[in-house]
Amino acid sequence: MKTPSSATRISNNKVYIFDTTLRDGEQSPGASMNTEEKLEIARQLIRLGVDVIEAGFPVSSPGDFESVQRIGAEVGDSAVVCGLTRAVPKDIEVAAAALSTAKRPRIHTGIGVSRSHLQDKLRISEDEAVSRAIAAVKLARTFVEDVEFYAEDAGRAVPTFLYRMIQEVVAAGATVVNIPDTTGYTYPAEFGALIGGLMEHVDGIENVVVSVHCHNDLGMATANALAGVAAGARQVECTINGIGERAGNTAMEEVVMAIRQRSDLLGGLLTDINTRELTRASRLVSTITGIRVQPNKAIVGANAFSHSSGIHQDGVLKERSTYEIIDPADVGAGGSAIVLTARSGRHALKHRLEELGFELPDDEFERVHTAFLSLADKKKEVFDEDLEALVGESERTVNEVYHLEQVHFTSGEPGIPTATVELITRDGEHMIDSSHGTGPVDAVYKAINRIVDVPNELSEFSVQAVTRGIDALGEVTIRVTAADGRVFTGRGAHSDIIVASARAYTNALNRLLTADEKKVQEEI
Amino acid sequence: MKTPSSATRISNNKVYIFDTTLRDGEQSPGASMNTEEKLEIARQLIRLGVDVIEAGFPVSSPGDFESVQRIGAEVGDSAVVCGLTRAVPKDIEVAAAALSTAKRPRIHTGIGVSRSHLQDKLRISEDEAVSRAIAAVKLARTFVEDVEFYAEDAGRAVPTFLYRMIQEVVAAGATVVNIPDTTGYTYPAEFGALIGGLMEHVDGIENVVVSVHCHNDLGMATANALAGVAAGARQVECTINGIGERAGNTAMEEVVMAIRQRSDLLGGLLTDINTRELTRASRLVSTITGIRVQPNKAIVGANAFSHSSGIHQDGVLKERSTYEIIDPADVGAGGSAIVLTARSGRHALKHRLEELGFELPDDEFERVHTAFLSLADKKKEVFDEDLEALVGESERTVNEVYHLEQVHFTSGEPGIPTATVELITRDGEHMIDSSHGTGPVDAVYKAINRIVDVPNELSEFSVQAVTRGIDALGEVTIRVTAADGRVFTGRGAHSDIIVASARAYTNALNRLLTADEKKVQEEI
Repeated sequence: MKTPSSATRISNNKVYIFDTTLRDGEQSPGASMNTEEKLEIARQLIRLGVDVIEAGFPVSSPGDFESVQRIGAEVGDSAVVCGLTRAVPKDIEVAAAALSTAKRPRIHTGIGVSRSHLQDKLRISEDEAVSRAIAAVKLARTFVEDVEFYAEDAGRAVPTFLYRMIQEVVAAGATVVNIPDTTGYTYPAEFGALIGGLMEHVDGIENVVVSVHCHNDLGMATANALAGVAAGARQVECTINGIGERAGNTAMEEVVMAIRQRSDLLGGLLTDINTRELTRASRLVSTITGIRVQPNKAIVGANAFSHSSGIHQDGVLKERSTYEIIDPADVGAGGSAIVLTARSGRHALKHRLEELGFELPDDEFERVHTAFLSLADKKKEVFDEDLEALVGESERTVNEVYHLEQVHFTSGEPGIPTATVELITRDGEHMIDSSHGTGPVDAVYKAINRIVDVPNELSEFSVQAVTRGIDALGEVTIRVTAADGRVFTGRGAHSDIIVASARAYTNALNRLLTADEKKVQEEI
Repeated sequence: MKTPSSATRISNNKVYIFDTTLRDGEQSPGASMNTEEKLEIARQLIRLGVDVIEAGFPVSSPGDFESVQRIGAEVGDSAVVCGLTRAVPKDIEVAAAALSTAKRPRIHTGIGVSRSHLQDKLRISEDEAVSRAIAAVKLARTFVEDVEFYAEDAGRAVPTFLYRMIQEVVAAGATVVNIPDTTGYTYPAEFGALIGGLMEHVDGIENVVVSVHCHNDLGMATANALAGVAAGARQVECTINGIGERAGNTAMEEVVMAIRQRSDLLGGLLTDINTRELTRASRLVSTITGIRVQPNKAIVGANAFSHSSGIHQDGVLKERSTYEIIDPADVGAGGSAIVLTARSGRHALKHRLEELGFELPDDEFERVHTAFLSLADKKKEVFDEDLEALVGESERTVNEVYHLEQVHFTSGEPGIPTATVELITRDGEHMIDSSHGTGPVDAVYKAINRIVDVPNELSEFSVQAVTRGIDALGEVTIRVTAADGRVFTGRGAHSDIIVASARAYTNALNRLLTADEKKVQEEI
């Protein structure tokens, strides 16, 4: 186990990074991911060097169970793999089963500690909450050595009750105690004081790692997490791009770079994150979840290192540090020097894909190669971002219920948008239909709907150019809401954005239909 | 003057909100706005109830000069109007001239105070910086009573020199002193201590308003600004959506709601902002600048109040406050109950537009009405967001160099995207051309390029559905970079996203061509 003994915990200057992109991040509306997508992110988290990967909430669905299991097997020794539970025996037993593949398993269990959560949600007394918490930690310790306890809504808790709760779970065997500001309610000075009070008032706190888990509802998750670290916390829970419920979690890229740039303020504390992988991690999570990063996002936004005003440009030309506190290369920003063309050949493509971290089986490499040739024919230069989009597109065509074989459309102003599509079913049946609509996307969707008759509503649609230039590959992300309220994300990439839209819609419908299949299996 | 006397400044519990969306916000790469767009935002800032509007940097360009002048005339008594200058006589004289229309003018002047800025940018001694600062404040006071001084890069300054500088400018007549963390370098405890030190060590500081201006490079602008307020600052400089240089400025919506929700931590401090206008302000700035807000952005993101996990949904159903600390209605989120249809009629449209704050001249109302009928024909329901997009679209067709009369295209997979466009010049000449491309957008752009021969590169392209549903109006934002490096944003709305793209490109080219005309005039 790499998890430090109590002796090293106290003496070393390391802040542990606990990534919850795959659990709390996935709770972002519309961000649900399948197991393959979660594995792809997990591989990037290992490249980043995170200490703990929270892989899911195993009892919540068979998909989450499978993801935790497969991520545990994939991660091996590289990081602790963690599964979330409520303070409920069944949750803990299921999490333990899901974590059986992990070399360094951790069960994350806990219960609400604020008045709001005790009275309005759980409807139990403080004593009852404490005894459930103790039982949960003890049960978890029968399965694994490493047990983290979360005190939900600690940011709004009465401090004396929080101290009591934490002292009891530490005595019961918790190895890590997580103090979440679940509703993003606190200010840094307030949250820092809460952690400081814990360090002072809880017997045995020096034998465990104190963790902070902050939400961004008032825009202060990063500052709150760092105030916790300054007061004694040594683990930060965070997500790539700060995704998560509502306004999201602490953004890993912000907290890691703030610790790195201002280690002077934190007594020399450091993380083990390979910061040069931050930009790629951001792009990957944005592509997979469909949740875009705004240009003015700190560290990973498109403009994070751009200087626009004449005064700033003048200053930066004289000496970068006048207006720039981070070298963009340190977070992996700034684009690759390697550009492929139609003449690059199979070997160059394979080599570059491997450098980007994609080790594809032969049949998938063939699909990506064909798509690469077709794109390189249309565009002069194929960038890394294009390759990432092509790999994503290829992965999405695996196990399709309906495959989009052809799409044709005509439209204009004035004019009536009209489209024809051909889909192929799993059984090899070719189905063709046409429709008009308010625009070509609408016409294509209506033509697809005539073949795939599944009630749904489009709840979001966005297109982004993957790279620069007028001939860039376009990537479309859509979200559809099924009749029962479940949301499915679909993505598609093509140099024609209407074709990309058709692919994105087919992808979303395939995911909806596959989820229905799974649900049926579960009910049986 | 509404600016408080020193007596009221000390006794009241108000935090002044200084909006710099039109100055620092406009410095976001690609966000440059024309005067009409700035006026539209200024009107919304008045609806919000901001105390100070920084309208521009008058010496920087004739466009900025004109904007400051027109905003000053428009704002009247409603707010202080401020113009930025360097500590240079010409800047201050030009700003004073631009502010001549304002009822409550403020000149904002200043100079760098960090070692980096003194040695590497300005290349002057501390004494020289102080004497330039004093001279600038004194000169500004000959034009206006209200002079704000900024100590650029104060976040990295040696505190004792900052205190000296501030004491000197207060003695010279500054009424407001702005302490910027120009490079977004500080932590809240550090920045709060800097402001606290200022309150303690500077003679006469009790007679002026201390202002904080924070940048978000490490993700802590909001927390830093609030730490400054807790330590004695009474003005916060901020932008809508936190736009600005690099990772942007303190976001107004975050700092205002954090003060409102946690007034208990700040001794009862409050702002005068009408928070119900925050969501509309966010949407307006996002539409005009083309800078999107990410879904997990605090307060104004699409998901800021969405609950996704089952546990959270269960809690919120039992009692909202278990996971929700802000009522979405308090920030104006949650959509309007009024929906127009094809049968709504002219009067209902006019009435709703007025409620939304659009008082259109007759000819413009006619254009919007025609577009409304055409949209209502295609969509069942027309929402407020659709109306806002239609008004924007109509405004963009005023004073066009080229008008997009017709566009037709056909494409598919497999297939060769092909488009034909008809443009009408100002002289009434009809010009038609066609092209193929890598996709229909590319084909349309190439066809337009054959008519409008202006070298440029597409640097960003994004499409967003304005409202929900598969038949939604699509809004396209593009940015093109001219041969000399200037960036122009173009926008277009239509239910056909390729038509919207054609309109956006025509709009960007028109802006590029109009800017060239202005430049030529200036050179003459």
